[in-house]
Amino acid sequence: MGTTQLETVPEPKYWHLKTVLSEALDTDFSVGEILPNERDLAARFGVARATLRQALEQLELEGRLHRRRGVGTTVAPPRVDVSTSQHTWPGAADDVWQPADCTTATIAAAPAAVTRMFTGVEGELHTVRRTRTTHGQPVAAELLYVPAASVPELPAIEAPSGPVRARSVLRELQRLGLDGQDRAVELGSARADDAKELDRLPGAPVLVVTTRYFAQGRTAAVSVATYRADTCRLTFGDSGDLEISHHGPAAHAS
Amino acid sequence: MGTTQLETVPEPKYWHLKTVLSEALDTDFSVGEILPNERDLAARFGVARATLRQALEQLELEGRLHRRRGVGTTVAPPRVDVSTSQHTWPGAADDVWQPADCTTATIAAAPAAVTRMFTGVEGELHTVRRTRTTHGQPVAAELLYVPAASVPELPAIEAPSGPVRARSVLRELQRLGLDGQDRAVELGSARADDAKELDRLPGAPVLVVTTRYFAQGRTAAVSVATYRADTCRLTFGDSGDLEISHHGPAAHAS
Repeated sequence: MGTTQLETVPEPKYWHLKTVLSEALDTDFSVGEILPNERDLAARFGVARATLRQALEQLELEGRLHRRRGVGTTVAPPRVDVSTSQHTWPGAADDVWQPADCTTATIAAAPAAVTRMFTGVEGELHTVRRTRTTHGQPVAAELLYVPAASVPELPAIEAPSGPVRARSVLRELQRLGLDGQDRAVELGSARADDAKELDRLPGAPVLVVTTRYFAQGRTAAVSVATYRADTCRLTFGDSGDLEISHHGPAAHAS
Repeated sequence: MGTTQLETVPEPKYWHLKTVLSEALDTDFSVGEILPNERDLAARFGVARATLRQALEQLELEGRLHRRRGVGTTVAPPRVDVSTSQHTWPGAADDVWQPADCTTATIAAAPAAVTRMFTGVEGELHTVRRTRTTHGQPVAAELLYVPAASVPELPAIEAPSGPVRARSVLRELQRLGLDGQDRAVELGSARADDAKELDRLPGAPVLVVTTRYFAQGRTAAVSVATYRADTCRLTFGDSGDLEISHHGPAAHAS
């Protein structure tokens, strides 16, 4: 446990400790097990508390540890593979997202980054809030932005907000034929409202997936989905066939 | 500047400050500008240094600020869109990666996560190190794992390591017909060697893109690419046509 493969590279002390701890997690601990407290761990590895804390932060960033107030530090299970091919045309029959709410305001009132994606589109903007769970755990919170121009036949007589309204917007969106989509992934920090839904603290690192949906030669909708970076690994497949292989890698290697 | 859209949501003090600061970056500062020091900023916004520091950390995570030792805190330019469709079959004519080195060892000696992806494959494993730059800046460092079984005709007489060897491995890999590939993205922390190439400190947040290449019914190669999370936004397109749209969003909206 005292050696690493990185001995030729000069490295900070906490980094060496992180490597040693990572090996210890493999051999001496099992998933879900609570680690000894920081004082005991620091003594066991002969390091200062500050060094230990830096190493634990690294391991949390890499998804090896979960740290929760009141519970302590536990050994994390492997990250869950979450397929982004599930970002199908919103509201399609195989859609995994659960609509929770819908609000309406002008496009100009949206966050600047969203307004920019709808350059040339004017009028009102429906914001549908949806969530995605895997094995009963929340993994992502989404804001789906739909310009009123994309759902011109949306009835005005219904409830102005709430899940019923959200489902109406999604149903109307299905009338448009999807021309294509693109996606981008970047690092972000959880907003307070997303953090609450994801059972995280505000500011926790998240993977932000922005999907633009194109129909009739313009941007018909934009999805900004916030995935837990600690528990999720996002998968992208070239084809439907390959998508299956994410869950059975051995089939390809045999 | 003193109001936010989140007033109905209970939020920590540093979070509110982050929102206010974010708006100030838009209106009062330009890209590349050095922010006032922490003491002055804390005084200007009437908060404790610790609160200010938390808010600055959030903004760094979101790619709004760069913090570098000796330079201070500067306003970051928008993140660069980096296309992952460039993870073509390694060594192809349009390959953007620059080979830097190649080493050879047994598959069993590779990191456990890599060995697992080659279940059923035995023998030696070539590890090609490559880098990717955009606009002269290093954006990613890659380890490309190629089992000897995928390049059976690789000449043994050449140099056993170095960029010449790396190019030979890539050239031989081209003889295999690619059946398909899949990709996964997750949050990680920069290893000391990657950090050096990316001009970051070890442990800096990175986006790790793992690509598996399939040929002849098995995993022919695996790429583990480490992208700077502070400066990069990874793009994924459905088709070649759409890929172009990443750099011209206005064309779709008009």
